[in-house]
Amino acid sequence: MERNIRLTISYDGSNYHGFQRQQNALTIQEILEERLSRLFGHHLKITGAGRTDAGVHAWGQVVNFFTTGTIPVERIPAAANGLLPRDIVVKAAATVDADFHARYSAKSKIYIYKVYNHLLPDPFYRNLAWHIKGSLDLAKMRQALAVVQGTHDFSAFRAAGGAAADPVRTMLQTDCRQQSGTIDLLFHGTGFLYHMVRNLTGTLVEIGLGKRPHEDMGPILASKDRNQAGITAPPQGLYLSEIFY
Amino acid sequence: MERNIRLTISYDGSNYHGFQRQQNALTIQEILEERLSRLFGHHLKITGAGRTDAGVHAWGQVVNFFTTGTIPVERIPAAANGLLPRDIVVKAAATVDADFHARYSAKSKIYIYKVYNHLLPDPFYRNLAWHIKGSLDLAKMRQALAVVQGTHDFSAFRAAGGAAADPVRTMLQTDCRQQSGTIDLLFHGTGFLYHMVRNLTGTLVEIGLGKRPHEDMGPILASKDRNQAGITAPPQGLYLSEIFY
Repeated sequence: MERNIRLTISYDGSNYHGFQRQQNALTIQEILEERLSRLFGHHLKITGAGRTDAGVHAWGQVVNFFTTGTIPVERIPAAANGLLPRDIVVKAAATVDADFHARYSAKSKIYIYKVYNHLLPDPFYRNLAWHIKGSLDLAKMRQALAVVQGTHDFSAFRAAGGAAADPVRTMLQTDCRQQSGTIDLLFHGTGFLYHMVRNLTGTLVEIGLGKRPHEDMGPILASKDRNQAGITAPPQGLYLSEIFY
Repeated sequence: MERNIRLTISYDGSNYHGFQRQQNALTIQEILEERLSRLFGHHLKITGAGRTDAGVHAWGQVVNFFTTGTIPVERIPAAANGLLPRDIVVKAAATVDADFHARYSAKSKIYIYKVYNHLLPDPFYRNLAWHIKGSLDLAKMRQALAVVQGTHDFSAFRAAGGAAADPVRTMLQTDCRQQSGTIDLLFHGTGFLYHMVRNLTGTLVEIGLGKRPHEDMGPILASKDRNQAGITAPPQGLYLSEIFY
């Protein structure tokens, strides 16, 4: 009997050219398909909830695939982790209804962007956060973040390459937390345009550094003009944190 | 005028064959000497406070070197970091007395060993902590840790390759802390024998897992016999944290 299997996956994206399979470049999807095919005894294709770019990480990426393989679902994580490289880890597995689709069934997603805010860099964060030397004013960043909550046309924060027809998305929740070593920006939304989180973060960091006032955020969003927003934050600070179904 | 310069250095040791210079293998010392020689305009040799093994990390390694170069001391960290690979960072620089020696002047050192205690591995800790699946009993580990405080012959925790004549060391302080993601074992001592922290950690983890009672720690230490102690913990959990002068 064919089963639809859902996996929750965490990976350090530093050594990969993103999630989605492509020619002549190593991707998370290619590794997962190759190792899972070996585990299940037949060629299988996986569907991912989000296409993370090169260097972007995941704590809770979700994928699904159909298999006729007979390995019990509770044994999948340990068995898969035994075959996967150590920078990709299957954290959970479940059998789901045949109509479950990792991408189309997703109701919302949380991305977290980590900023390491210190005069000098930290070797342990070199691939895991964006190093910002200047002191960030979190109060101003929080005021600007509040502006993007709700339903908006996010064209101002969409990369030129983005192909989605409709630029309207709903940001359910945002947060800016001082963690032990980093400042974590949280974005919980129903969907995200291409580079949207990185473009929002680049703009927020410019506001935090005092390069532009926090009052700019509203007009930038309203302009729907990518040229009004700030730079694109680099990939290594971005984490696909959680997908809700 | 020749100056004696002290640097405080942090590095991710994952990609190096340890601190100390060796033939045919890339080490932290070699990289530092090569890049600092370029910065100061003449060949220079550095002395490190502790010789970390392959895969071992540092937050506060200390080195010193003599230079006739004229770069102001306050500019050294940023200038050096501009030349160093991103996994080695100079955090501080100071001009010190000519008789300061990074190793011989050290009064004590703190090492921290990080254990990631979770059923499944974490891709972000793969090179930065020791993954232990079974649940660790921290109370028992703390009782065993207390036994090694004070001045003892630590021969039971010394690797066969260790060359130090005198196996007596003083452990000033120990600690076992639950951090956000890891269990951190702290060892503050006047000196350490070869693999001593890793052999202590291996024994403590066996106690934490219930493989042997915590009451064994005293007799193991008293035996002065390496065969009585536990396994050597792997290098990637070990951090040279701080050196006191």
